[in-house]
Amino acid sequence: MKQLLIIGIGAGDPEYLTVQAINAMNRADVFFLMDKGASKVKLLQLRRDILERYVSRIDYRIVEADSPERAREGDYSGQVQGLNHAKQQVFERLIDEELQDGQCGAFLVWGDPSLYDSTLRILDAVLREGRVNFDYQVIPGITSVQALAARHRVPLNAIGQSVQITTGRRLAEGFPANAQSVVVMLDAEDTYRQLDDPELEIYWGAYLGTPDEILRSGRLVEVGEDIQRTRQAAREANGWIMDTYLLRRGPKDA
Amino acid sequence: MKQLLIIGIGAGDPEYLTVQAINAMNRADVFFLMDKGASKVKLLQLRRDILERYVSRIDYRIVEADSPERAREGDYSGQVQGLNHAKQQVFERLIDEELQDGQCGAFLVWGDPSLYDSTLRILDAVLREGRVNFDYQVIPGITSVQALAARHRVPLNAIGQSVQITTGRRLAEGFPANAQSVVVMLDAEDTYRQLDDPELEIYWGAYLGTPDEILRSGRLVEVGEDIQRTRQAAREANGWIMDTYLLRRGPKDA
Ligand SMILES: C[S@@+](CC[C@H](N)C(=O)[O-])C[C@H]1O[C@@H](n2cnc3c(N)ncnc32)[C@H](O)[C@@H]1O
Ligand SMILES: C[S@@+](CC[C@H](N)C(=O)[O-])C[C@H]1O[C@@H](n2cnc3c(N)ncnc32)[C@H](O)[C@@H]1O
Repeated sequence: MKQLLIIGIGAGDPEYLTVQAINAMNRADVFFLMDKGASKVKLLQLRRDILERYVSRIDYRIVEADSPERAREGDYSGQVQGLNHAKQQVFERLIDEELQDGQCGAFLVWGDPSLYDSTLRILDAVLREGRVNFDYQVIPGITSVQALAARHRVPLNAIGQSVQITTGRRLAEGFPANAQSVVVMLDAEDTYRQLDDPELEIYWGAYLGTPDEILRSGRLVEVGEDIQRTRQAAREANGWIMDTYLLRRGPKDA
Repeated sequence: MKQLLIIGIGAGDPEYLTVQAINAMNRADVFFLMDKGASKVKLLQLRRDILERYVSRIDYRIVEADSPERAREGDYSGQVQGLNHAKQQVFERLIDEELQDGQCGAFLVWGDPSLYDSTLRILDAVLREGRVNFDYQVIPGITSVQALAARHRVPLNAIGQSVQITTGRRLAEGFPANAQSVVVMLDAEDTYRQLDDPELEIYWGAYLGTPDEILRSGRLVEVGEDIQRTRQAAREANGWIMDTYLLRRGPKDA
């Protein structure tokens, strides 16, 4: 049997690695690295640094695969499904050709594999397809949500209240009625700027856990513009950005 | 200045500890341990195991404090606020009497400090009160939400959809209209049993990451009763239980 490990490596700081993740990495014969886009160089380098720092065995192999890109036509869910189908074929080939029976392969997933990441869904589809067979295990990692909360030293939830984790696209439909706190990921459009509740507080973070980290917080009406400017400037300076934010309703909304 | 470290230790498995948490623990002169209730003995022991396993310095002190209990009268939010006020006085005394200037104290928080935990809120209140002064830092940890997803090997979110993290009490008000996935914590009442959407899937886990771990999953209508029975039996056998679950709407609800 082939073994796969889907390892969450945390969302930025190499010290977010857990002991479980480090032990798992030390069991892997092959690492599949498949970053893409503008952040590719940086994120690949970070994974290589992590391997150098934490893996003590020296006989592992690294396989870099070209990750397919999402088409920009059609509705979003269809685009992601199309992308996942293309990725499925890449994964199938990797598992088939680059891993031998009895060997262990690892995917290093940014943050935690369960949050806005398609690796689990794709492996599930590969298994159901039935052309290759393997056993697999998932290792949790520190998400960007937790990195955000820790760096701002704020709780995600108000006492006894819910937290919604959502995307920029969903937030554009309005602030969820039944949540006191909302964490927004995958927002390329500064969607917080569309909200006008004067009681909203924002905790924003970019490149969390990395040397480029930027933090901003305050009343949305007071700091929203500065965040938008800062974000724009950082994206231009670095060529790419990853950022996330927590929105909390103020006491008057409670 | 006094230094405090609020360290997330993960929600069960000692191997959920991050490198950052281990490094932080090794900077602490004093550890404040304040568990309570039926799980107290077990959870205190786990923290002591973690210290023994990961802290290499031998000159640290452990201070066990009696944690106040929540009153059972009045509304829930009022109970928690009352409890937090009592805890605030305990924290203030600990920082004042058990920590010297220039020393570093640590709180080991179950899971991640930002999720349904009051430590951050209380320290904030202590600081605002102004009777003691300190600097503090927060270290994220693996939450029970991530442990649940990893052990079931499922994504939390559907493609491009939101995830709501909520409590049993809130779920009793109904399945949130705008979320495809809901993670429920702090549910002592088997609230999932009140839901009757035939398309709902449940991923349930108790004592996640520990040797007592139990996992169940399937269509809620098919496995709900078994989960309730299993939960009841486990709570009786152990004297306490900690469990959490993910509810996902099926494809027909999408
Ligand atoms: C495809 S999702 C992956 C999330 C990842 N699995 C996690 O657990 O955080 C990418 C989004 O995560 C957020 N993100 C990831 N890493 C981040 C970081 N270091 N700082 C800020 N945001 C980050 C951004 O919102 C980004 O658009
Ligand atoms: C007061 S909250 C603390 C949550 C914690 N800060 C975290 O990050 O997971 C306690 C609730 O977390 C959940 N929980 C914590 N640890 C768990 C575990 N090992 N297995 C299952 N549920 C757990 C249960 O729902 C429990 O009622």
